[in-house]
Amino acid sequence: MNKRGIGKIALLLAMDDGDMENLKEFYEKKNYVIYRGQAGSMDAKKIVAAIETAASREDIIRENYHEEHALYHAIIEALSGYCRGQVMLGEVLRSAGLTFTIVRGTLIEDDPSSGNWIAVVLYGQIGSPRRGFEHEAVGMGIQPI
Amino acid sequence: MNKRGIGKIALLLAMDDGDMENLKEFYEKKNYVIYRGQAGSMDAKKIVAAIETAASREDIIRENYHEEHALYHAIIEALSGYCRGQVMLGEVLRSAGLTFTIVRGTLIEDDPSSGNWIAVVLYGQIGSPRRGFEHEAVGMGIQPI
Amino acid sequence: MNKRGIGKIALLLAMDDGDMENLKEFYEKKNYVIYRGQAGSMDAKKIVAAIETAASREDIIRENYHEEHALYHAIIEALSGYCRGQVMLGEVLRSAGLTFTIVRGTLIEDDPSSGNWIAVVLYGQIGSPRRGFEHEAVGMGIQPI
Amino acid sequence: MNKRGIGKIALLLAMDDGDMENLKEFYEKKNYVIYRGQAGSMDAKKIVAAIETAASREDIIRENYHEEHALYHAIIEALSGYCRGQVMLGEVLRSAGLTFTIVRGTLIEDDPSSGNWIAVVLYGQIGSPRRGFEHEAVGMGIQPI
Amino acid sequence: MNKRGIGKIALLLAMDDGDMENLKEFYEKKNYVIYRGQAGSMDAKKIVAAIETAASREDIIRENYHEEHALYHAIIEALSGYCRGQVMLGEVLRSAGLTFTIVRGTLIEDDPSSGNWIAVVLYGQIGSPRRGFEHEAVGMGIQPI
Amino acid sequence: MNKRGIGKIALLLAMDDGDMENLKEFYEKKNYVIYRGQAGSMDAKKIVAAIETAASREDIIRENYHEEHALYHAIIEALSGYCRGQVMLGEVLRSAGLTFTIVRGTLIEDDPSSGNWIAVVLYGQIGSPRRGFEHEAVGMGIQPI
Ligand SMILES: [Mg+2]
Ligand SMILES: [Mg+2]
Ligand SMILES: [Mg+2]
Ligand SMILES: [Mg+2]
Ligand SMILES: [Mg+2]
Ligand SMILES: [Mg+2]
Repeated sequence: MNKRGIGKIALLLAMDDGDMENLKEFYEKKNYVIYRGQAGSMDAKKIVAAIETAASREDIIRENYHEEHALYHAIIEALSGYCRGQVMLGEVLRSAGLTFTIVRGTLIEDDPSSGNWIAVVLYGQIGSPRRGFEHEAVGMGIQPI
Repeated sequence: MNKRGIGKIALLLAMDDGDMENLKEFYEKKNYVIYRGQAGSMDAKKIVAAIETAASREDIIRENYHEEHALYHAIIEALSGYCRGQVMLGEVLRSAGLTFTIVRGTLIEDDPSSGNWIAVVLYGQIGSPRRGFEHEAVGMGIQPI
Repeated sequence: MNKRGIGKIALLLAMDDGDMENLKEFYEKKNYVIYRGQAGSMDAKKIVAAIETAASREDIIRENYHEEHALYHAIIEALSGYCRGQVMLGEVLRSAGLTFTIVRGTLIEDDPSSGNWIAVVLYGQIGSPRRGFEHEAVGMGIQPI
Repeated sequence: MNKRGIGKIALLLAMDDGDMENLKEFYEKKNYVIYRGQAGSMDAKKIVAAIETAASREDIIRENYHEEHALYHAIIEALSGYCRGQVMLGEVLRSAGLTFTIVRGTLIEDDPSSGNWIAVVLYGQIGSPRRGFEHEAVGMGIQPI
Repeated sequence: MNKRGIGKIALLLAMDDGDMENLKEFYEKKNYVIYRGQAGSMDAKKIVAAIETAASREDIIRENYHEEHALYHAIIEALSGYCRGQVMLGEVLRSAGLTFTIVRGTLIEDDPSSGNWIAVVLYGQIGSPRRGFEHEAVGMGIQPI
Repeated sequence: MNKRGIGKIALLLAMDDGDMENLKEFYEKKNYVIYRGQAGSMDAKKIVAAIETAASREDIIRENYHEEHALYHAIIEALSGYCRGQVMLGEVLRSAGLTFTIVRGTLIEDDPSSGNWIAVVLYGQIGSPRRGFEHEAVGMGIQPI
């Protein structure tokens, strides 16, 4: 198998399809820092806050603006992909329920020369605030850190 | 394992990670129509054309505007997610090299009541037109058909 | 006179200029399903909700996600045209007061082969939340259904 | 009948539905300056150029930057509505064939206190560059002049 | 030194770097109308309101829609530049603290033939609602008036 | 005088108003790396290329993807502000002629704890490709490096 990129690692974990615990441990042994959480809201800023809070609490980023900025832009890029254009949920009467992953490590597996990056992936449902009236969405943001 | 959505099926196939042939056959037996191809360009319209051409040639959509419109909007949503905002490649001096999947079938696996939908997923690299100066991106568009 | 498209029918009815009742009846006899309503708000989601509620109550769409999704995307396209870019009203201190029409039927009048579509048109005023400080706007969204 | 706004006048003329010559003359007698033309392209800048050229040639705007700027922003707003978001045609493999109208006069009919404005309306088809694979679109831009 | 444009005058004053009072007086003697204020919020509409209120109170614009419209579009263009894309602050969990300037006068210094324009400049900080986690941003909007 | 931010330093140099050589030397002595160049085009990618080429040639960034990515995103943010929304020039029949500055150093003057950042500022004219039919524009992008 080819070396995976940091984005694919974050995607596989966000989809939660198959043996996630083994995959997570496999990459943690390769020095990736990994977190997986859930967020659901009609309010995009609550999703941003859930990811930022998890990243700080789990020490995925250090408490400086340099790293917080990288994380923030990765989140906004992921949300922009998830929303396919304008980052809006409740403002246009839609809601999101999703799994997010934050992964920090080399851009390419087993390639230290590729440098340190942070990936944020969102995978879940988007749609009307009414059960079953929703379809899947995905978004990925990647920034150097 | 939970039932997969059409988007996850398309994502797993686009990532080309693991036993893709078996996964493809597994879902073809469940009446999903599936295609996986490659496209690389600084020109977004060439990526649109590659996907539209494949969908027609492989009879994933019928030759009417109703279905072509569903496919087109799924492609544009996927591209919009891949580009994280404005659908622009060469116009802002960047390039994409990606695997695309087109999947047609029920919105949720083994749930005929969820209706017929089409999913387009793009997974690959985006970046400067210079080898190694690129990172991963992903985009997904889903439309009823 | 040429055959009208579903969008023109919805536009003419939204402008409320001339003999609307006769025009409405004329197209209802041709099997178009038509609704005209009013909405005014600084809150885009209230306009989305007003149109979705009317469409359900008047049985213009059936209670399934397939049709609700077509309606939703038609509404968002219409709002995007009305706002000429980002779908924002109160967030940037402006307000909308408008007539909306929902029309369901063939894409082209008297052409069954053109298939079934839904059109949403918004026509009204947009501007500062202060009487007389506003100008006209229009938006149209069309989706297969 | 209520007084019409400059946008409705431009819309009615762009739709070319009914007795356009009489309507045009009616508003020219009320001191509106009116032009109606056609444009079709996969290239948004050719549509911009067709409208700007017509406006200059027909003396709808004076040869100064103040007025050219008002016209330009009205055109871009109309195109943005027509495209429902990003002003892109061929870049995303779609094409437009449309009637445009340029109307200059008071914001509201018979209301000199409403000031002088310019309205640009686009009404036509947008879609795949393939006959019959297209639906209607509309866009309106209004600026003080 | 070359003649300055109205945008540069507004930029120099917004940066508040050097001898602002002299610069302001210098341009007021040249018939520019100038105002400098502060605004800070996670709510874009409060920034719009602060600028609109100042412009009315200081008689930079007359109380008619023609001039209010020019000011409004200049503000939105400035905010759009400040936000570098979508005009969103708190919706994506970020905040702005800025100095704004409104300048009204000829487009180019000492060039009456360039006509009357209004420029709005925003210069300040944008970032996380947490002290020190922010960087500079700038935006400029210019409209004929 | 207060400490300047890296954005203000880049802005002052881009405006080329006053004693630029002294200002440049002053900040070079404080370990800022600074470059000022010109670019003019209807083609956004030529402006991106001009800035990227200058940054490489002048050794403002090192030849790795980490730094090139930071520069690229700073350029796109600056262009997005300059264009006030969609990054489009010739596609909508407008042209830009501008001075760009690239500045690398601490986020805040004399504050090493603020970390290393890169700022790109664009200041110049935007408008119709016709002499005198243009107004000023500005854009700023700031990224950690
Ligand atoms: Mg930033
Ligand atoms: Mg469409
Ligand atoms: Mg959808
Ligand atoms: Mg302008
Ligand atoms: Mg307006
Ligand atoms: Mg990137």
